[in-house]
Amino acid sequence: MNQQILFKSRPEGKPGNDNFQFEDLQEPECQDGEILLEAEYVSVDPYLRGRMRDEKSYIPPFEIGKPLESMVVAKVLNSKNSNFQEGDRVVGMLDWKKKQVHDGKNLRKIDTRLAPAPAFLGVLGLTGLTAYLALEKIGKLKEGETLLVSGAAGAVGSIVGQIGKIKNCKVVGIAGSDEKIAKIKSWGFDDGINYKTTTNMKGAIKELCPNGVDVYFDNVGGEILDASLQNINKFGRIINCGAISIYNETEQPTGPRPEGILIKKSTLMQGFLVRDHVEDFEAAIQQLGSWLKDGKLEYEETIVEGFENIPQAFIDLFDGKNTGKMLVKI
Amino acid sequence: MNQQILFKSRPEGKPGNDNFQFEDLQEPECQDGEILLEAEYVSVDPYLRGRMRDEKSYIPPFEIGKPLESMVVAKVLNSKNSNFQEGDRVVGMLDWKKKQVHDGKNLRKIDTRLAPAPAFLGVLGLTGLTAYLALEKIGKLKEGETLLVSGAAGAVGSIVGQIGKIKNCKVVGIAGSDEKIAKIKSWGFDDGINYKTTTNMKGAIKELCPNGVDVYFDNVGGEILDASLQNINKFGRIINCGAISIYNETEQPTGPRPEGILIKKSTLMQGFLVRDHVEDFEAAIQQLGSWLKDGKLEYEETIVEGFENIPQAFIDLFDGKNTGKMLVKI
Repeated sequence: MNQQILFKSRPEGKPGNDNFQFEDLQEPECQDGEILLEAEYVSVDPYLRGRMRDEKSYIPPFEIGKPLESMVVAKVLNSKNSNFQEGDRVVGMLDWKKKQVHDGKNLRKIDTRLAPAPAFLGVLGLTGLTAYLALEKIGKLKEGETLLVSGAAGAVGSIVGQIGKIKNCKVVGIAGSDEKIAKIKSWGFDDGINYKTTTNMKGAIKELCPNGVDVYFDNVGGEILDASLQNINKFGRIINCGAISIYNETEQPTGPRPEGILIKKSTLMQGFLVRDHVEDFEAAIQQLGSWLKDGKLEYEETIVEGFENIPQAFIDLFDGKNTGKMLVKI
Repeated sequence: MNQQILFKSRPEGKPGNDNFQFEDLQEPECQDGEILLEAEYVSVDPYLRGRMRDEKSYIPPFEIGKPLESMVVAKVLNSKNSNFQEGDRVVGMLDWKKKQVHDGKNLRKIDTRLAPAPAFLGVLGLTGLTAYLALEKIGKLKEGETLLVSGAAGAVGSIVGQIGKIKNCKVVGIAGSDEKIAKIKSWGFDDGINYKTTTNMKGAIKELCPNGVDVYFDNVGGEILDASLQNINKFGRIINCGAISIYNETEQPTGPRPEGILIKKSTLMQGFLVRDHVEDFEAAIQQLGSWLKDGKLEYEETIVEGFENIPQAFIDLFDGKNTGKMLVKI
């Protein structure tokens, strides 16, 4: 039986299972120009929380009663579109449905000889592209600089830190458990801070980054961003890539004003959205693929099994239950 | 009699006359390699408030019991330095003294045939350079874009807006009185907002910038920055040039966190210090001088008379008593 997951209600604060609704469906038939797809791996990502709000953003908000969507690796079961053949694997923004038809637009075929299929939702997908392109476009790392990254054991953060080491920088990661800190060190990070057991983040960063922070790659926002700003060097760059610590706030979150430090330190803070850089994707995938082949990039996935567990896997992101990219295998 | 102004105590909150102390001095004599200078115009600027704090910054803090300093236009009364002649006019960072000797380092000779002496502390000095270089380096204005500037009737803001018009942008200014709004319109600004009589700044900006804000030139920080961020366009640029609204705060000021908007709008916020760009000064003065000659740049000065009024002129900056550059004529 085919099945889909609908957006039932907008969450207040942290999302819960009652914001999602499962529905049985007929298996669709594909018309001329279309392909029939079967989902194999579904990506769940913190940014989806933003689409659950009813507000204008870089992509339209999810509509109540409509299927949710995210990046999905799918297999072509049947093709009436000359660009695809039965058996092809594709990646793209797809509905949370076991099977669906699609016109093929904005889908990319993937080569699973280069890396296993789930990698195309992670290190060779939007998360790897985010890490690489944000560092290229905003971070502009120079050899010998200090790179600080939060969400360091997460999908984006783990790649960010490893790229920092490839570029011969000092790399310090921030994560939420001692296990995660051990993990990032095993990937070559110079050091790590467990923010859950650290009361003075400003001091902890200062201790591990005695020359200050040149680039801070922010996946979390909030108080960790504040503490990083207090350690930023003259001409420092802050990449605002994610703000998971504030996504579930129902009130406008407040904090110390940054403008004084920005002026004093001639510091740049810039929001980064990987979608703004589609024209750079191919070259970036080549670079990431080559590092992967040379054994310079390790990555981890947390793979949950079962279509029925997609909502819970998404909810678990906000409790930091994943290490690396969170995926659901269908 | 010669006289100097010493830094008596660090202000808490708004500076007052009791933070300053006058002292009589002998007239100094110049030795080989030195010049004897007589101050003619002394610049007072909001950034000096930062140097009154005992904290590390881009220039060392003022020391208690030592003379204060700022940009000054002075006349060479006597020269034992082959680079200067009696009668030369120079501009540079000088002590708040009626007369002083100097080794000539980091002083620039000015040509008062190009513009009157006070202009070299304003439109052809650090304020004009700040406006021009911050727009070049961070603002990167494109024809047809919307430029919003706070402190619009102030020294930097008034030049910023006029450069925006030279670049064929829509320019809206924010200032603190209807008189100032009338003034900026007379300089060619398209429109203005009196923040003192406006309760809903976010709405007022939206009304006057219906296509959103592409570049916000921030001289004030605080709530006006918040309201501007709420109107920023995708790929908007915010130049953090000053934060006069928070300089006198004794507690760390707080406000709405910007990281959510920065991410959503791929927005850049960057602190700007004109001192970081000394290598670009000469070319910038040429450009500003040429606009001035062509009648494309108007400027205003508030000139207070008398060495004894330097502290009060500085204090008055924080009540917005100046229009354009605030100077003291000795």
